[in-house]
Amino acid sequence: MTETIELAQKLIQIDSVTPNDKGCQNIIADYLKPLGFDTEHLKFGEVDNIWARKGTEAPCFVFAGHTDVVPTGPESAWTHPPFSAHIDGDMMFGRGTADMKSSIACFMAATKRFVADYPDHKGSIAYLITSDEEGPALDGTVKVVETLEARNEKFKYCLVGEPSSSNKLADSIKNGRRGSLSGTLTIKGIQGHIAYPELADNPIHNMAPALEQLVQVQWDHGNEYFPPTSFQISNINGGTGATNVIPGDVVIQFNFRFSTEHTPESLQESVHAILDHHKLDYTLDWNLSGLPFITPADGELIRAVRTASDNVMGYKPILSTAGGTSDGRFIAPTGAQVIELGPLNATIHKIDEQVSVSDLNQLTEIYYHTLVELLAK
Amino acid sequence: MTETIELAQKLIQIDSVTPNDKGCQNIIADYLKPLGFDTEHLKFGEVDNIWARKGTEAPCFVFAGHTDVVPTGPESAWTHPPFSAHIDGDMMFGRGTADMKSSIACFMAATKRFVADYPDHKGSIAYLITSDEEGPALDGTVKVVETLEARNEKFKYCLVGEPSSSNKLADSIKNGRRGSLSGTLTIKGIQGHIAYPELADNPIHNMAPALEQLVQVQWDHGNEYFPPTSFQISNINGGTGATNVIPGDVVIQFNFRFSTEHTPESLQESVHAILDHHKLDYTLDWNLSGLPFITPADGELIRAVRTASDNVMGYKPILSTAGGTSDGRFIAPTGAQVIELGPLNATIHKIDEQVSVSDLNQLTEIYYHTLVELLAK
Ligand SMILES: [Zn+2]
Ligand SMILES: [Zn+2]
Repeated sequence: MTETIELAQKLIQIDSVTPNDKGCQNIIADYLKPLGFDTEHLKFGEVDNIWARKGTEAPCFVFAGHTDVVPTGPESAWTHPPFSAHIDGDMMFGRGTADMKSSIACFMAATKRFVADYPDHKGSIAYLITSDEEGPALDGTVKVVETLEARNEKFKYCLVGEPSSSNKLADSIKNGRRGSLSGTLTIKGIQGHIAYPELADNPIHNMAPALEQLVQVQWDHGNEYFPPTSFQISNINGGTGATNVIPGDVVIQFNFRFSTEHTPESLQESVHAILDHHKLDYTLDWNLSGLPFITPADGELIRAVRTASDNVMGYKPILSTAGGTSDGRFIAPTGAQVIELGPLNATIHKIDEQVSVSDLNQLTEIYYHTLVELLAK
Repeated sequence: MTETIELAQKLIQIDSVTPNDKGCQNIIADYLKPLGFDTEHLKFGEVDNIWARKGTEAPCFVFAGHTDVVPTGPESAWTHPPFSAHIDGDMMFGRGTADMKSSIACFMAATKRFVADYPDHKGSIAYLITSDEEGPALDGTVKVVETLEARNEKFKYCLVGEPSSSNKLADSIKNGRRGSLSGTLTIKGIQGHIAYPELADNPIHNMAPALEQLVQVQWDHGNEYFPPTSFQISNINGGTGATNVIPGDVVIQFNFRFSTEHTPESLQESVHAILDHHKLDYTLDWNLSGLPFITPADGELIRAVRTASDNVMGYKPILSTAGGTSDGRFIAPTGAQVIELGPLNATIHKIDEQVSVSDLNQLTEIYYHTLVELLAK
C-alpha cells in the first residue's frame, strides 16, 4: 500500500459532509509542516479553510481542493459503507474517493517526494483547501482568495484536483468553466374553478408558448473553448393539488451554462424579450453563480501538465470546459493560470462512489512530474 | 332575521368539510319531520346522505344538494372567520354561504311555507342531500339514486340548489352540464446533472411543444345547448427541488369540460395523437367523471321555475350548461327533469365566499313559487 492510498483512506474515513471538515485539514497541515510549509487555518463562518505555503519566491504553484463531501444518500444502498474507504480489487469505495479527497492525498504524496528530490526547487508550493466547495461556497475558496489578494500574496499556477477524467485517467483536463446563471420565474394568472375558465386566467396555458420558445432557442454555437450555451429547466410547479382548480401561478426554475459568447446581461435580455413578447405577467429573480473563465492552452501550466501526463500515461489530456462549476471560478479572476486535473468523474455524487487505486498512484506521479516541470532547478 | 337566514347560519356554522356532514343532515331531518316527511339516513362508506319524502303520490319533486363544503384555505386570509356566518350589511360570509348550505336553508323555509299554505298539495316533495358532492362523489348522490332505482322509487322533477346565478339572482339556471373528463399525464425523460444535459433527457423540454399545442386547440364550437369544449391544466409538477438536477419526469393533470359535440373517446384520441406526434414517452391515466346531459327547455320544471323567477324577480332566467359538474349528472340518467337554480357563484370555493341576505330571502320565494306552480291544487 502506497502512502497515497494510506492518506486517501485516512481522509475518506472522516465523514466530512459539507460544510464540515472534521479534522481533515489538520491531517493535511500536520503532514505538510515537516516538509517546510507554513500553515494558516482561515475559518470563515462555519467553514474551515487552510492556506499552506512552502517558500516565498515566485512563481507560486497552488494545489487547490476541498475536504467536504456531498451527503451519502441511503447508506444501505452502498455496496461498502460510504466512509469505510474499503478496497475491493483495484477499486476503493467511499464518499470523496473521486470528489476529491483522493486527489488531496495525491497532492501530498507528490509534494513529499518532490521536496525530497528537489530540496532547492524554484518558487513556492502552496495548498488552498476549503471545506465548502459542495455547499453555498460563500465562506470557502472565494474568501481565501480575497484574503490573499488583500495582502497582495500572488500565485501564478493553480492545479485544482477535481475529477476531470472521463474514461481513463488524465484523458481530459478542464482549462475553464462555463458560466452559470439561474433564474426563478413566476408567471402569474388568476386562480379559479376549472369549470369557469373565463373567470380565471391559467398561467400554465399562458406560459406554454414562451416555454416552447425558450427550450427551442439556439443560444449560441460555442467557440473554440466552449460548447454551446445550454438552457435547462430544473423545476416547474403550478397547481393547488386539487384537480378542479386553475392555479394562480406557475414557478419555473432554470439554469444557463454559458460560454464567453454570452454575458449574463445578454442572456437576461433574451429571456425577458421572450417573456415580454408573449405579454406574460411575471417576476424573475436571477442568480449568477459564476462567470465563464478560460486558461489559454499556450500557458506554462497546461504545457507542464500535458507533458507530465504524457510521461506517466503515454498520452496528453485534451482540454475541456464542459461540466459543472468549480472553485476555479473564484481563482481564475486573480489572473492565475488555473486547470483541473483529477480522477474519473463517473461516480461522483452517486451511490458507490469509487476510484481506482492504481489510477491514484499514477495521478501522484502526474502531479509530481508537473511540479518537476514547473519548479525543478 | 328570517327563518331562511337563521337556518343558513346554523348550517354554515358547522365545519362540514368534505366528506363530513357533522350533523347538518340531522338539522334538516329534524326540521322536515314535523312537516310530514319520512326521513332516511343512507350512509355509504364515510358519507352521510339523507332521503326525505312527504307523500307517496306522483309527481315527486326533489330538492337536491349537499351539506359538505370545500376547505377554507388559510383562515387568516378571510375577512370574517369562514365558519362564522357573519353578516356585514347585506352580505353573509362563510364557507358554504353560496355553495350551497344557504340554498338548503331556502329549500326548508320554502317547503314549510308551502306545506302550511297548501296542506293538500298534489304529488310529493322530497330531499336528496349528500355530504360528498365536493369530493370523489362515489358514495353520495350516485348511491342514493341507485338505491331509489333499485326499489323503483321514481321522481319527476329535481331542483338542485347549486349556485347558478352569475350577476344577479336567478339570471341563469342550468338545464344541463358539460361532460367532465380528466387526465393525469406523466412525461418521462432521463434524470441527470444540469451541467451535463447531453447525458440526460429533459422531460419538461420534451413536453413543451405538445403543451403549447394542447392549450391552443379549438376542440369544438359548442352547439345550441353547450358552450365550446374547454381544456384546462390544473397541475404541472416536475423537478427534484434541487436546482442542479434535470428531472426524470413531469406530471400534468388536466380536465376537459365537453359538449355533446365530443365523446370521451374522441377527446382521448385527439390528445394521444398530439402526444404521439411529438414522440413523447408518456403514460396517461383517464378519469371520466360525467357525461354531458341536457334537460330540454320545454318541460314543466323549466317552465315552472322561469315563471316563479319572473313572479319574484321580474325577469326569467336564461338557460345555461356552462360551469362545473354537479350531482345533476347522476340524477339526469333516471329520466327526471333536472335543473339547477341557486345564488350567485362569483365567490364559490374562494376566500371570503359570501351571499346576499336579501337574495336568499328572494330565493326562498322563488322555490316557494316553483312548488306552487308544480304541486298546488
Ligand atoms: Zn469536487
Ligand atoms: Zn356545490
